[in-house]
Amino acid sequence: MKNIFTLVLFLMFGQTYVNGQARIQHLEPMNWWVGMKNSNLQLLVHASGISDYQPKIDYKGVRIEKTHKTVNPNYLFIDLVISPQTKAGEFQIVFESRGKPSITHPYSLRDRKQKSAERTGFNTSDVIYMITPDRFANGDSTNDSVKSLVDGLNRGNINGRHGGDIAGIINHLDYIGGLGMTALWINPLLENAQPRDSYHGYAITDFYKTDPRFGNNADYVRLSEEAKKRNIKLIADMVLNHCGSEHWWMKDLPDSNWVNYQNKPLTITNHRRESLHDPYASDYDRTLQSDGWFVPTMPDLNQRNPFLAKYLTQNSIWWIESADLSGIRMDTYPYPDKDFSAKWSGEVMREYPDFNIVGEEWSLNPSLVANWQRGKVNQNGYQSNLKSLMDFPLNNALIEALNADEKIWNRGWTMLYQTLANDFVFAHPDNLVIFPDNHDMSRFYTQLHSDFSKFRLGLAFLLTTRGIPQIYYGTEILMSNPKSDAHGEIRGDMPGGWPGDSRDVFKEKGLTVQEMEAKQFVQNLVRWRKGAAAVHWGKLKQFAPENGVYVFFRYDDKQKVMVILNKNTTAYTLELGKFKEILAPVFNARDIVSQKTLQVKDRIVLEPGQPMILDINP
Amino acid sequence: MKNIFTLVLFLMFGQTYVNGQARIQHLEPMNWWVGMKNSNLQLLVHASGISDYQPKIDYKGVRIEKTHKTVNPNYLFIDLVISPQTKAGEFQIVFESRGKPSITHPYSLRDRKQKSAERTGFNTSDVIYMITPDRFANGDSTNDSVKSLVDGLNRGNINGRHGGDIAGIINHLDYIGGLGMTALWINPLLENAQPRDSYHGYAITDFYKTDPRFGNNADYVRLSEEAKKRNIKLIADMVLNHCGSEHWWMKDLPDSNWVNYQNKPLTITNHRRESLHDPYASDYDRTLQSDGWFVPTMPDLNQRNPFLAKYLTQNSIWWIESADLSGIRMDTYPYPDKDFSAKWSGEVMREYPDFNIVGEEWSLNPSLVANWQRGKVNQNGYQSNLKSLMDFPLNNALIEALNADEKIWNRGWTMLYQTLANDFVFAHPDNLVIFPDNHDMSRFYTQLHSDFSKFRLGLAFLLTTRGIPQIYYGTEILMSNPKSDAHGEIRGDMPGGWPGDSRDVFKEKGLTVQEMEAKQFVQNLVRWRKGAAAVHWGKLKQFAPENGVYVFFRYDDKQKVMVILNKNTTAYTLELGKFKEILAPVFNARDIVSQKTLQVKDRIVLEPGQPMILDINP
Repeated sequence: MKNIFTLVLFLMFGQTYVNGQARIQHLEPMNWWVGMKNSNLQLLVHASGISDYQPKIDYKGVRIEKTHKTVNPNYLFIDLVISPQTKAGEFQIVFESRGKPSITHPYSLRDRKQKSAERTGFNTSDVIYMITPDRFANGDSTNDSVKSLVDGLNRGNINGRHGGDIAGIINHLDYIGGLGMTALWINPLLENAQPRDSYHGYAITDFYKTDPRFGNNADYVRLSEEAKKRNIKLIADMVLNHCGSEHWWMKDLPDSNWVNYQNKPLTITNHRRESLHDPYASDYDRTLQSDGWFVPTMPDLNQRNPFLAKYLTQNSIWWIESADLSGIRMDTYPYPDKDFSAKWSGEVMREYPDFNIVGEEWSLNPSLVANWQRGKVNQNGYQSNLKSLMDFPLNNALIEALNADEKIWNRGWTMLYQTLANDFVFAHPDNLVIFPDNHDMSRFYTQLHSDFSKFRLGLAFLLTTRGIPQIYYGTEILMSNPKSDAHGEIRGDMPGGWPGDSRDVFKEKGLTVQEMEAKQFVQNLVRWRKGAAAVHWGKLKQFAPENGVYVFFRYDDKQKVMVILNKNTTAYTLELGKFKEILAPVFNARDIVSQKTLQVKDRIVLEPGQPMILDINP
Repeated sequence: MKNIFTLVLFLMFGQTYVNGQARIQHLEPMNWWVGMKNSNLQLLVHASGISDYQPKIDYKGVRIEKTHKTVNPNYLFIDLVISPQTKAGEFQIVFESRGKPSITHPYSLRDRKQKSAERTGFNTSDVIYMITPDRFANGDSTNDSVKSLVDGLNRGNINGRHGGDIAGIINHLDYIGGLGMTALWINPLLENAQPRDSYHGYAITDFYKTDPRFGNNADYVRLSEEAKKRNIKLIADMVLNHCGSEHWWMKDLPDSNWVNYQNKPLTITNHRRESLHDPYASDYDRTLQSDGWFVPTMPDLNQRNPFLAKYLTQNSIWWIESADLSGIRMDTYPYPDKDFSAKWSGEVMREYPDFNIVGEEWSLNPSLVANWQRGKVNQNGYQSNLKSLMDFPLNNALIEALNADEKIWNRGWTMLYQTLANDFVFAHPDNLVIFPDNHDMSRFYTQLHSDFSKFRLGLAFLLTTRGIPQIYYGTEILMSNPKSDAHGEIRGDMPGGWPGDSRDVFKEKGLTVQEMEAKQFVQNLVRWRKGAAAVHWGKLKQFAPENGVYVFFRYDDKQKVMVILNKNTTAYTLELGKFKEILAPVFNARDIVSQKTLQVKDRIVLEPGQPMILDINP
């Protein structure tokens, strides 16, 4: 009889009733921690007709403050208060409704890792290695295709899934650590249950679930633990602006305004991010920028909905605690509601004061980028809580500077010099993440038209100037995209990441002499940088470039580093008189690039197209 | 006997002794005014051996506070205090030295013009007409060449003097006023006793003397009076960074550090103006920028010398009082010592709180320009007192926007839209001077590749957007420089400015149909702008350009102006729905360009390549 009743319910409501009880489809966050600074927690409960139920909790220190219903009866939001003295443990949440069987759902409050609140985010002492997980290494061929997910292995398609996964990254952490890298930014690892083009990870369909083709949440945690063993910090790539069109809630939206342009014709953003700062902006442009969808397959989330706002903020904190993160890279930072963004980053930073978050504002205008950084006094009164931003202006200047003709006034190195001279627009230029390329642009070596000299000069600059360097996987072996700048080409498979690969970066097999030279060059500099406190925390002093030579210094009380970048294709004699404000008349130095020690007086003869990094210890 | 004695002295010391007295070669300022806010005045006295003398003044309210000597015995600096109650009048300064005949020199203190202190500088209600005086009109052929000055009339040489003068400008003030212009910026009118290339006026050889080839100081004053009669404000072009190499004091320098690199090898500036803002700048670059000479014929003045600093500041105030100026255009603003510049502009503005000064910082980086404007909170603590700057970034964006292909993302009108959206970097963007071209760059029409449609669109923009428009003489008749962008070509002779010219702008003789159309177009808009309060003081609201059409509004409580710039070479139907936040569903308007009245509802059909300026009065 009972079984028949269940069957009837099942036929009536799908799988939402089990054994006569409404089945809880989602209750998120699935767990939480005791001892958080913020003692409030809001649970999202998704179950057929759940809004008719009253939740009850009998656990010392935990109190239900309020419940909220929306227009959708299948959702209930529960405000909990977890008092500071609460002990970690398990309990039941009991949902009761008159005339209906009550529902019970287990919940756990965990102890936090030691010093979780004091965790240190990535900073200027780090070099970040960046990975597109589908394209780095396939460590577990059993998850290449997953039954429940349509987009399966298709390595022949540049937009298909190639099988890279968390296990693959874990397998090669020694390689990454061996390069000298101390942080890891991995493109989103969460479920993208999209019918195609799902490999990049930016169309998240479950904010609490690792994509099974990459592994599971336990694998995610294991990656973090294994990285930490090697002193590598883990930075999660997060997306708050949108979700994937196949996100589970798109089939049963939690509220009437959960996504922007909900039940309205598809409306794409105008991408006019400048309108958020424009003193003359129309409401029309500002609204369209923020509320329009990024692409048709990525519904634009409405973070002005207070339940969604809490959901997203708690989700970020859940991952920091669960996966012991050292940072967040926030996708499309200017696209969510900007008041929400400030609140979100403020709440995360309040929980973890020494954490770091880097936002993506892909603008070449430093003033626009600067407006999003914490500490900037904005004319419109906007106060951001974001510590770091991706330094797209410097990226662009570096590539233009390297490619430009030094003989033209204000071109060449001067473009780089001028970009840094403009740093007064930033509250904290040191905390910008700097990079030769990333997953969205042509590979550095391709942008430099495969000029190895410029490659070396560019990386010598990035690894010694102000900021936090980030290097995309494969850049160390001159990875290129000669065919096109299609995203799928840029995000090529790392040679050696797949069984049977004829070339293997990790075993240094089948690489060209130049690729090996590039790897040695990068490894040598990144490893040296690890101990170069003047580059981490010291001052910068730059001299206006002359005759194709750019010279700058990083220095503190103990160390002085002189960087000399000679773009000339001939040798050049650099007279040292102009540097007398910082250089002694005679000094000894070690050139980190050539690994030679030299005594310097009056002048240095520079090799054609070579960087020098003189480590001058007094 | 006495005559022989004089002759001996003459043979010994040149012309510095007359009748046994040391002859005062310079005593400057030659006069001053009573009732100035600043009761201090410092006189520079230049005469052979004058430092041995003690000056005395017997005039009620005037007191010698201190005298200063320098290493050069031929100079004396006298600090006067002029008490507020002092009456205007004449008196003698008596210089005494034991065993030498005393010297007397007349001095006068004048009454100021009524409300001199309250004078209003040029502002957003103005359109500035700019003139290179040698090239506008020759009103007095008797001064074309002057015996004492080497560089005489040579109209065949683009770098020679062509004979234009103050009389020529006065003769055509009705033309200028007829165009609707309300202010006049004239390139420097002061003496340039240089052997060649002296026509441009920027190598000043006497800061107190009008160049005789332009007229004399009385002519200068008459120009101001005649302009004022026509409600045209006069803006003087001043130079504080350098003087001409033939300046009188270069033969007998007042102090050991009057010019930078004095008695040292010629050292040219590095032009690295960004080094003044660069948080990482070297002392080397900053010093070279500020102290290096602009060109070999223009010695770089050392404004850190306190006597020179006072001299220059008093000179500016002297000209404001003497010529009843409404503004200053300051040449090469970032090149003098920057602390001096702040002090100089501060002292001028304290004397004339509603005055205006516009500085030239020829940078395309708005953040650099913004740092020089009063009210900007600079990270390095620098506080400027300069109200206005030349808006080179907007000039560049306008020309690039007009010439660019609208079909390329972020090109075309969007470049202009983005430049304005970036106005948050300025403390007072309204107070920037905006322009299609000036005396240092190719003519607007030439830069637009002689595209008349773009010319109209560009000027319609400039005459309605935020800022103070400035139009270079001849731009109203499409003046061009097809041969080259040499300065002498850009600064062509105004047709009709010389007797016998076959073409005459002023009499509208010999102009092409298009030149006449251009003039009518400019005159129509400039005259209308005179009464358009919403354009002077109103708000700006802009919409992101779409499909080659850029729309913005100027509005206040009483007036609404809708500017529509259609760059398409075909007609375009502009749907008005997106403007509903500012437009009524149906409205009446007058198009200032076509001078037609229209009733508007839902959409407007735009003519190809035409601007519309809809004056919507509620």
